[in-house]
Amino acid sequence: MSNRYVIGVDLGGSRVRAVLANEKGEFLDRCEFPTLADKGLYFVLERILECVQSVSSNAPRIDAIGVGAPGPINSKEGVVSNPPNLPGWVNVPLAKLIEEKTGIPTFLGNDANLAALGEFTYGSGKYVQHLIYITVSTGVGGGIIIDGQLLEGHNGAAGEVGHMVVQPGGPKCSCGGYGHLEALSSGTAIAKRAREAASLNKDTVMIELAGSVDKINAKIVDEAAKKGDPLALKLLEQAGQWLGYALINLIHIFNPQMISIGGGVSEAGELLLGPARKVVFEGLMPVFKQDLQIVKASLGGDVGLAGAVALALQESAKSKV
Amino acid sequence: MSNRYVIGVDLGGSRVRAVLANEKGEFLDRCEFPTLADKGLYFVLERILECVQSVSSNAPRIDAIGVGAPGPINSKEGVVSNPPNLPGWVNVPLAKLIEEKTGIPTFLGNDANLAALGEFTYGSGKYVQHLIYITVSTGVGGGIIIDGQLLEGHNGAAGEVGHMVVQPGGPKCSCGGYGHLEALSSGTAIAKRAREAASLNKDTVMIELAGSVDKINAKIVDEAAKKGDPLALKLLEQAGQWLGYALINLIHIFNPQMISIGGGVSEAGELLLGPARKVVFEGLMPVFKQDLQIVKASLGGDVGLAGAVALALQESAKSKV
Repeated sequence: MSNRYVIGVDLGGSRVRAVLANEKGEFLDRCEFPTLADKGLYFVLERILECVQSVSSNAPRIDAIGVGAPGPINSKEGVVSNPPNLPGWVNVPLAKLIEEKTGIPTFLGNDANLAALGEFTYGSGKYVQHLIYITVSTGVGGGIIIDGQLLEGHNGAAGEVGHMVVQPGGPKCSCGGYGHLEALSSGTAIAKRAREAASLNKDTVMIELAGSVDKINAKIVDEAAKKGDPLALKLLEQAGQWLGYALINLIHIFNPQMISIGGGVSEAGELLLGPARKVVFEGLMPVFKQDLQIVKASLGGDVGLAGAVALALQESAKSKV
Repeated sequence: MSNRYVIGVDLGGSRVRAVLANEKGEFLDRCEFPTLADKGLYFVLERILECVQSVSSNAPRIDAIGVGAPGPINSKEGVVSNPPNLPGWVNVPLAKLIEEKTGIPTFLGNDANLAALGEFTYGSGKYVQHLIYITVSTGVGGGIIIDGQLLEGHNGAAGEVGHMVVQPGGPKCSCGGYGHLEALSSGTAIAKRAREAASLNKDTVMIELAGSVDKINAKIVDEAAKKGDPLALKLLEQAGQWLGYALINLIHIFNPQMISIGGGVSEAGELLLGPARKVVFEGLMPVFKQDLQIVKASLGGDVGLAGAVALALQESAKSKV
C-alpha cells in the first residue's frame, strides 16, 4: 500500500477544485475552475475530467478519486440526488461517470460528511475516535465519526445535522421544514435576522459597514460584533445558543469526545462558540462532559478537499487488503 | 460456536429477572425477584448470583452473561454509574463483580440500549440493518443500531434519546435539564399534564377511571383515550407530536430504515404513533422517507432480557473467533 496517489475533488456550487495527494494526504498539485452549473451537467463533467487529468500528470499512477458534492446524495451508489445549488443535477451517477471516463475507482461523499472525515484525519480530530464536525456557513451541515468510521446510514444520507428541529414551529428552512438549526444559526439566517433588526435600529454599526441595510450579510455581522456592536453581538449569541441546543442533542445521542465547528460563520470564534458552550455545559448530563472538547475546526477552506483525499485513500486501502 | 448457552439478566428498579437461553435466543428457564434496592448493593448482588445459579442448573455450561442495567452506565468498563432508581449504586463495577463470583465472562449494557439490541435481533428490527428503538415508559430511553452494530460512544453512554432538547426552555426533566423529550412525552410527563388538566376540567372520564385527580397515571390516560375522552386524546396527541420532532432529528442524523417504539406508553398504539408519524412525514427531507418504517415494537416486556441474551451471544461469539 505504499506510494499511493489519489485525487480529491470538491464540487461546489460556485467552484470546482481538485488536488493530487500522496498517501500522507499532502497536496502535491491543485486545479480550480468556476462551476458554471447553468451550462449543464456535461459541461461541468468535462471540466472536472480536464482538472483530474491536469493534476494527474505529476504522478506515476492514480489509485482512487474521492469526490465531495453537496447533499443530499446517495454515497453508497455514488449518486448526486438534487442539490439546491446544482440545478438540473437530478440523480446523477457522478462516481460512475468519472470512473468510466478515467478508468480510476471513484468514490462520492456528501461534502459536509467529507469535511468531517478531513477534520478527523488531518485536523482538530486527529487524536480522537468519536468526532462530530459541524460546518456553519451559508447552510449548516455536518458529519459524524463513530469509532473512526463515518456515519452513512441506510441510503448514505446520514449526518444532516442542520436539519434537526431546534425550535418546533420556528422559521422556515431552505429544505421546507420549520425551526431547523440551519434556519436559526446559518450565515443566511443570521444575515436575515440582522437586516430585520437593523431596519428597526438605525444606530447599529452594521449599516455603516455594509453601506445599506439590505447589504448586511453574516460577514458584516461578525465584523460589527468584533467592533463591539451590541446588536451584532446579540445576533451571534442567539445563533450560538441555538447551536448549543442542537449540540446537547448530538452529545446525548453520540457521547463523542470532540465537537469541531468549521465553516465561515465559525470565524466569529468565541462570539459564537462561547454562548454555544455555555448552553451545552449547563444542559449536559455529567457522564457526557467527561473528556468532551468543543473546538473551532483547524483545516479552514481546504477541509473538503482533505476529506475527499481521505475518502480516496481509505477506499483504495480497502481494495488492496 | 454451536450449542452455546448464555444467561441474560435484566436489573430493574423494581425487579430483577434472569433467563437461560440457547444460541437461537430461545428462553429455556427463568428466575425473578423483587430488587429491594434499599437493602443495599451486596444484598441485590447475592440475589442476582442465586438467580444466575438457579437458571444455570439446566445447561451443560454457560458461555457468557449479559446484564442490562439502568443508565447512565459505562458499558465499556461494565460500570453502573449512578442510576436514579438504584440509590447508592455509585460507580459499581457490576460486570466484574459477577464475573469474579461466577467465573463466567460478563458484559454490561444500558437497559434501553439492550432493548434496542433485543428488538433488532429478535423483534421488529429483525430484517433491517439500521434501527432506532425508543422506549416510552416512566422515562424515555433508546438505542441505535447502525449497520447491525449498537452505537455506544466514547464512554459507552450513547443513545440517551430521551434527553434530546425538543422544546428549549420547556419543562424540567428528571436529569435536571429543560425541555427534554422525557419531560414531554414520557408516561410521567403525560400523567403530570393529565392531572393538571383534569383539575381544571372535571368532566374528563379520567377522574372517574382513576377514582380521583391525583390518582391519574399514564395508563388511565390511555384507557380514557380509548373510550374517546377528548382531553386524554389531546394529551396523547401532544406527546406523540413531541416524539415526532425528536424523530425528525434522529432520522435526519441517522438515515435509518426503521423506528421501533416500545415501552408501556406505546400501548396507546396509533393514538400516540399517529400524531408522531404525521409530524415526521411532514417534516422530513424526501431522501429520508425512502423505505422508512415507524412501527410499534414487537417484543413487549421481555425485550430487555432478549437484548441481554443477544449481548451475551454476541460477545461470546467474538471471543471464540
